[in-house]
Amino acid sequence: MPTDTGDTALALARELIQRASVTPADAGCQALIGNRLAAAGFAVEHLRIGEVDNLWAVAGDHGPLTCLAGHTDVVPVGPADDWAYDPFGATIDDAGWLYGRGAADMKSSVAAMVCAAERFRDNHPDHHGRIAFLLTSDEEGPAVDGTRAVVDWLGERGETIERCLVGEPSSETTLGDTVKNGRRGSLNAQIRVVGRQGHVAYPHKGDNALHRLVGLLNDLIAHVWDEGDEAFPPTSFQVSNLTSGTGAENVMPGVAEAACNWRFSTLQSEQSLREIAESYAEQHGIDPASFTWRLSGEPFVTREGALIEATRHAIIDVCGHPPLLSTGGGTSDGRFIAPTGAEVLELGPANATIHQANERIPAADIEPLSRIYEDILVRLHT
Amino acid sequence: MPTDTGDTALALARELIQRASVTPADAGCQALIGNRLAAAGFAVEHLRIGEVDNLWAVAGDHGPLTCLAGHTDVVPVGPADDWAYDPFGATIDDAGWLYGRGAADMKSSVAAMVCAAERFRDNHPDHHGRIAFLLTSDEEGPAVDGTRAVVDWLGERGETIERCLVGEPSSETTLGDTVKNGRRGSLNAQIRVVGRQGHVAYPHKGDNALHRLVGLLNDLIAHVWDEGDEAFPPTSFQVSNLTSGTGAENVMPGVAEAACNWRFSTLQSEQSLREIAESYAEQHGIDPASFTWRLSGEPFVTREGALIEATRHAIIDVCGHPPLLSTGGGTSDGRFIAPTGAEVLELGPANATIHQANERIPAADIEPLSRIYEDILVRLHT
Repeated sequence: MPTDTGDTALALARELIQRASVTPADAGCQALIGNRLAAAGFAVEHLRIGEVDNLWAVAGDHGPLTCLAGHTDVVPVGPADDWAYDPFGATIDDAGWLYGRGAADMKSSVAAMVCAAERFRDNHPDHHGRIAFLLTSDEEGPAVDGTRAVVDWLGERGETIERCLVGEPSSETTLGDTVKNGRRGSLNAQIRVVGRQGHVAYPHKGDNALHRLVGLLNDLIAHVWDEGDEAFPPTSFQVSNLTSGTGAENVMPGVAEAACNWRFSTLQSEQSLREIAESYAEQHGIDPASFTWRLSGEPFVTREGALIEATRHAIIDVCGHPPLLSTGGGTSDGRFIAPTGAEVLELGPANATIHQANERIPAADIEPLSRIYEDILVRLHT
Repeated sequence: MPTDTGDTALALARELIQRASVTPADAGCQALIGNRLAAAGFAVEHLRIGEVDNLWAVAGDHGPLTCLAGHTDVVPVGPADDWAYDPFGATIDDAGWLYGRGAADMKSSVAAMVCAAERFRDNHPDHHGRIAFLLTSDEEGPAVDGTRAVVDWLGERGETIERCLVGEPSSETTLGDTVKNGRRGSLNAQIRVVGRQGHVAYPHKGDNALHRLVGLLNDLIAHVWDEGDEAFPPTSFQVSNLTSGTGAENVMPGVAEAACNWRFSTLQSEQSLREIAESYAEQHGIDPASFTWRLSGEPFVTREGALIEATRHAIIDVCGHPPLLSTGGGTSDGRFIAPTGAEVLELGPANATIHQANERIPAADIEPLSRIYEDILVRLHT
């Protein structure tokens, strides 16, 4: 089994993985990181909001601020029997895979960022501008007292972020093949259709709520919302849950409930999606009040800028090829930072195994990732 | 509150209702009835099959047999708070409604039949042919050890039923407005679609089983199976239950399950329905093995005959109008008797409240119902 020496990014990643920080727990990750950053000249502040630990650290005197952002929390491990190794063991197998909950999402990135900042501060103590870290222990959960709250707090202090690099695992297959330059919005709806329960043999005496819901969902699934654009894939609609029925096979249900979700680009808005959904609903005799809406996040995109340029060149230098820009996949805390006007990019390791059993990345990817982060800082601040 | 005298059909109906005989319990109903029939000259046999009580009683020496059939079991009461009166109290309110589980389905009919047979035997001791009773304590449940088993037993004895009058509540609004001269078949299917679970933001990496099931069900709900004929309403398809989803709103479900039911006429068969369903399923990438089929009953119909004639005239005599013939609604134990070649009709009180809270019929309907049954026996056996 390969070993790692004490102060590499790999060593720090393993230390962080071994701390079982399931949302909203931080399990001491930020204390460890805070000490490392303080030693590198950062002014470190720990902000506890509710049950959530957050960290804000800044180095440099004045000038445009580049923020390295991420989270120390991880999702639950799921059934332990599904794991080949202890999910908090940070095992490196003989093929060089680093296993652990958070290995990809996103403790390796956090470690890589910290080491990159340490080397950058060591090599360029008089760099211009400022480098900052924004970390939270709730990105995977409700995310109310995490990055969103820190951004509000920064606003009250008059602090501005020019550019933000989020360490979410953006790569698809190989390190650096993909960078996220935006994210789709996420809109949730719970639909509760009320009809009238009855006997299946007397359909005219009841009103099968499930039939009406099935008709509506069929229309929503078939609807082409848009074709996307150069930055965004087409808006996507998915039904995640549906429950209806009494259990009895001769009873038409009087209630049917579903949960569904849109991932949408800047071509749509919460309002545009609701109008279409409510229009279809009306065709099936379903009242708009049957919908309970919850916007998880607005879409955002960074189409060009200094951060994209620096990142593109850093990846070419370290990986030998330019990255694809993508806005696919889920969402990230970037959605809280983008509205402040910052350029936001996401760059991290391969995401194939996130949220699954046997989450893992090639251990050998962590040092190159750290060099990419460092190279970006050099390009922006020297 | 109106009262009833000791030996009326109303009094017997109240006694039976007060016995809480939820399937498969008989709660002594058949013992009570058996004693009454024995006193009227019936040879009474009690057959216990599994957990079910059945009764077969015959009066008369030889010749064509008219069977009066029904069940002593009732469905559960549901939430007790939904009832205005004790569901086993057999209360008659000031407006003359007889309340109770089984008041409509079908203890009033059983009582009316018993009293009709007693009066008939008393007035016509030398009637030709034979009169029989077939009662069971499981019509509402699995119905495996009830009428079906008794019919098999009769077959083994070489016993033949020429005509059968089943006391199921056939009337729609007023007593005798409708008689059932057949029933649709009932075919059940459980459909289990297997896809691949995934993240809603990465739909191409999974296979949303719920989307495919919704597409299939939408086609089945919209399909016009047939237009019915002079005896049967159009074949009807209903989805009774649907469950899919992990509970999480960002997970596409890899499994989706539904239960559905066809009520079909002699224009369809189990095979014809399965072929159409499997054809639609194929269009949605759903394997035929995803279906688990269960035929509850074949359709049957009696288009003309002595029983229909006698019943029609009896109703005209007692109610002043002829009945409509119908094959609508659910199913009945008539489906086990019809295949033997018997003419089968169903006649009983109004069915508006069956299987619901506050099941009730006009108490004043029971004596006229009993006179109709008696008049039918007179027309067929004197």
